[in-house]
Amino acid sequence: MDFKGSHILSVDQFDRHSVEAIFKVADSMIPYASRQSVTRVLEGAILGNMFFEPSTRTRVSFGCAWNLLGGEVRETTEIKSSAIAKGESFYDTARVLSGYSDMIVMRHQTAGSVEEFSRASRVPVINGGDGANEHPSQALLDLYTISREMAHRGQSIDNLHIALVGDLKFGRAVHSLCMLLTLFDNIHFTLISPEELKLEPQYIEKIKSSAHVVTESTELQAGIQDADIIYVTRTQEERFASSEEASRYKGLFRLNQAIYTEFCKPNTVIMHPLPRDSRADANELDNDLNENPNLAIFRQTDNGVLIRMALFALILDVVEQLPASSRPVNWYTARRF
Amino acid sequence: MDFKGSHILSVDQFDRHSVEAIFKVADSMIPYASRQSVTRVLEGAILGNMFFEPSTRTRVSFGCAWNLLGGEVRETTEIKSSAIAKGESFYDTARVLSGYSDMIVMRHQTAGSVEEFSRASRVPVINGGDGANEHPSQALLDLYTISREMAHRGQSIDNLHIALVGDLKFGRAVHSLCMLLTLFDNIHFTLISPEELKLEPQYIEKIKSSAHVVTESTELQAGIQDADIIYVTRTQEERFASSEEASRYKGLFRLNQAIYTEFCKPNTVIMHPLPRDSRADANELDNDLNENPNLAIFRQTDNGVLIRMALFALILDVVEQLPASSRPVNWYTARRF
Amino acid sequence: MDFKGSHILSVDQFDRHSVEAIFKVADSMIPYASRQSVTRVLEGAILGNMFFEPSTRTRVSFGCAWNLLGGEVRETTEIKSSAIAKGESFYDTARVLSGYSDMIVMRHQTAGSVEEFSRASRVPVINGGDGANEHPSQALLDLYTISREMAHRGQSIDNLHIALVGDLKFGRAVHSLCMLLTLFDNIHFTLISPEELKLEPQYIEKIKSSAHVVTESTELQAGIQDADIIYVTRTQEERFASSEEASRYKGLFRLNQAIYTEFCKPNTVIMHPLPRDSRADANELDNDLNENPNLAIFRQTDNGVLIRMALFALILDVVEQLPASSRPVNWYTARRF
Repeated sequence: MDFKGSHILSVDQFDRHSVEAIFKVADSMIPYASRQSVTRVLEGAILGNMFFEPSTRTRVSFGCAWNLLGGEVRETTEIKSSAIAKGESFYDTARVLSGYSDMIVMRHQTAGSVEEFSRASRVPVINGGDGANEHPSQALLDLYTISREMAHRGQSIDNLHIALVGDLKFGRAVHSLCMLLTLFDNIHFTLISPEELKLEPQYIEKIKSSAHVVTESTELQAGIQDADIIYVTRTQEERFASSEEASRYKGLFRLNQAIYTEFCKPNTVIMHPLPRDSRADANELDNDLNENPNLAIFRQTDNGVLIRMALFALILDVVEQLPASSRPVNWYTARRF
Repeated sequence: MDFKGSHILSVDQFDRHSVEAIFKVADSMIPYASRQSVTRVLEGAILGNMFFEPSTRTRVSFGCAWNLLGGEVRETTEIKSSAIAKGESFYDTARVLSGYSDMIVMRHQTAGSVEEFSRASRVPVINGGDGANEHPSQALLDLYTISREMAHRGQSIDNLHIALVGDLKFGRAVHSLCMLLTLFDNIHFTLISPEELKLEPQYIEKIKSSAHVVTESTELQAGIQDADIIYVTRTQEERFASSEEASRYKGLFRLNQAIYTEFCKPNTVIMHPLPRDSRADANELDNDLNENPNLAIFRQTDNGVLIRMALFALILDVVEQLPASSRPVNWYTARRF
Repeated sequence: MDFKGSHILSVDQFDRHSVEAIFKVADSMIPYASRQSVTRVLEGAILGNMFFEPSTRTRVSFGCAWNLLGGEVRETTEIKSSAIAKGESFYDTARVLSGYSDMIVMRHQTAGSVEEFSRASRVPVINGGDGANEHPSQALLDLYTISREMAHRGQSIDNLHIALVGDLKFGRAVHSLCMLLTLFDNIHFTLISPEELKLEPQYIEKIKSSAHVVTESTELQAGIQDADIIYVTRTQEERFASSEEASRYKGLFRLNQAIYTEFCKPNTVIMHPLPRDSRADANELDNDLNENPNLAIFRQTDNGVLIRMALFALILDVVEQLPASSRPVNWYTARRF
């Protein structure tokens, strides 16, 4: 795809080549995100960071990615009192807000809303999550993490065995990641979930039609034995009819260090889209894994900044300008770990 | 008026000369707002964007205008938990907050609050809307839009015929725009509203005392026939005793393409302070006008950025420095339309 | 203490030498905060301003201090819908958020939360207030104000007589200020409060064990007669079982100009951590003192910016770079008073 001036609305926009192009630019963002270098390549550019549904992690990640390229962020974090609540159409909102900034990131609880908004926007729009539908930058950062973790182990995404664990029915992150993985070769998907929360047939068909292997299981220990990656999810409580119903599925699959040691291959990578639910009744990923070097969950969020910087730089066509615009960081930046 | 260091609290501060001075500076801001050039003339300056009443459009517009001049924005968007709620006076709030920034934009639901705040502020304050009272930058952007639209048609503000439609009793934007228009020559005001929502006598007297013409009507079709500008407003639902009462006036006057074609002069300009209410029971300005090139409603909001940049630059006395501080934009900025 | 890369969690971290080092750097920030000079020494650096408990004054003060050094601010102002509410641990939140910024300021209503957060953070954390526990930058700005006010009167902190008035039981600011004052020599503390809201014994013991003098009183007029500083507090309504109970203590001690004139030494400094409660039933510090040049309450908040700039500059080790990075302010900055 040609990124210049494009909206990013869905993982369906990407082919393998475009994913690899994003990853290559993301790699080049490491010196900025790790505070070795500063760039001001987007100095004077404005991001409209429109979160009509609340978010801390994703909102701050996009905002920081833009700031790290030198731009300014104008933010909106509520919908209750917005013009949309007074009967304004997405068309009007988009026409107005796109006059204020150089790019818009938008999250909204309604599936399809960001796509509708983008049709009226005069500037590029990135989907920061539209309800249960899409969250493409999350899928990209997950796949980028897989790529980097496997590279450290001398492997690639091709021929990967990934075990997906938990609520595979409602987990938006899982659906998008699966679709991106189908762009690669010979992936083995082990799907571990309760019967009622299985990955829906349309996804399984898409995976199989691309000549990948699918194994389904309702047992954690059996399913994870041969995996390179274990991708654990929390129960998407907010998507169930009641919290009582959701609680029936909480804590069904719990990965901890003892299970990891007994059942996993050495150096199996552990991932989670976060937040993980650390309350006693859920605790799908135990804190006793925090010192396990294969726990990649915080590398995932760190990688999110790189992916978002890459998308911004590609869409605004400033990748080539980066080397010339860089200077060393001049403040104390020693990280504790 | 001398803008340097001034508060902007009311349209009453302006004479024709000062309005034209603002418009001239607003014109010079087009290269920055349209992303041809970048300026950093306010680099290091801080705007306190204090919205004690919620707003997306106006808040983001002021913030972007400041960013486009190179400055930083610190924002407040809630009042419930603020010090004012703990019994702090506007005097104290203003003395404290004015120590944090170079300029303050303030919105508050209480009429007169911004003026009271400004008396204790050590830095210039712009009224971003104080209840039903004033919103001077909205009136300026409306008049600036009229000026530019008429100029494209070879006319000026003088000798204009404007039809104002809808809730003329509670519409703050209408009141301020009328007062600004009286500074010009020979304006014909056609006021179209339900009997109960007529423009109040004190405004009509002021208009007439400046030798302008006022025609009142309760019929849309008759009223708009000879107008150069049709300025449509939504029913100010929040100002009525109940939403039932407000709903009696919703949808009474609806402009759409069929009515426009049948009753209006060619190239009649259509304006609205936005948001327009696109719900079926209101719909005062139909979406079938969206492709009509005379629909100026999104040029209004775009012009708002120019007007706010102009006010900032005049108050902080940096207009002369702009040419020397400019450089071309270095990222991809092609607008879609 | 070595500031480089440190967390600032409690006043217990400071000795007299480190307090004086902060004050010296704060002095050097005056040209920037008073808008004579601009520095961009932190250009490209990002502050995570995480206010999980609402605040306008402290939040904006930290944000402006960072902006004045040239850095960018990413802000969070709510907790209801955050990941913490979905069961995320402080450990996870800290690991994630510390990947997005160069420093974090955090406020949270739970005592000890910021310290717990800081243990997992990869970047320095400043405690912006953790419930009734600590708010070290407030204590530092209070002491810095005392130092500057006394210096103008030819005195130092040593040998000071300070009268603390009001709710000494729940006032976090009072506790921390007292602890900092014990680092100096021969302080006389006069504690004026209702019997039920006395400073708790552990603080009094600490003060006495450092060879300072403590006098307790339940009478305002008697207590303030010989003081150099009168530090008045509001009743911490939110810490009482009911607002009825709190209201029993409101308005018990009221300082106004008449009392000041009759009972105080000339030039006695009046301080308050703000907000002062100006409602008729409280009004602990009357508005008729607003023109009294010894009212230092707004100099306190102005000094807060200097202290916070100093902490940032010391922790990130950029103090030495400031002179070379400075240029004159290029916009109109005349303050009104």
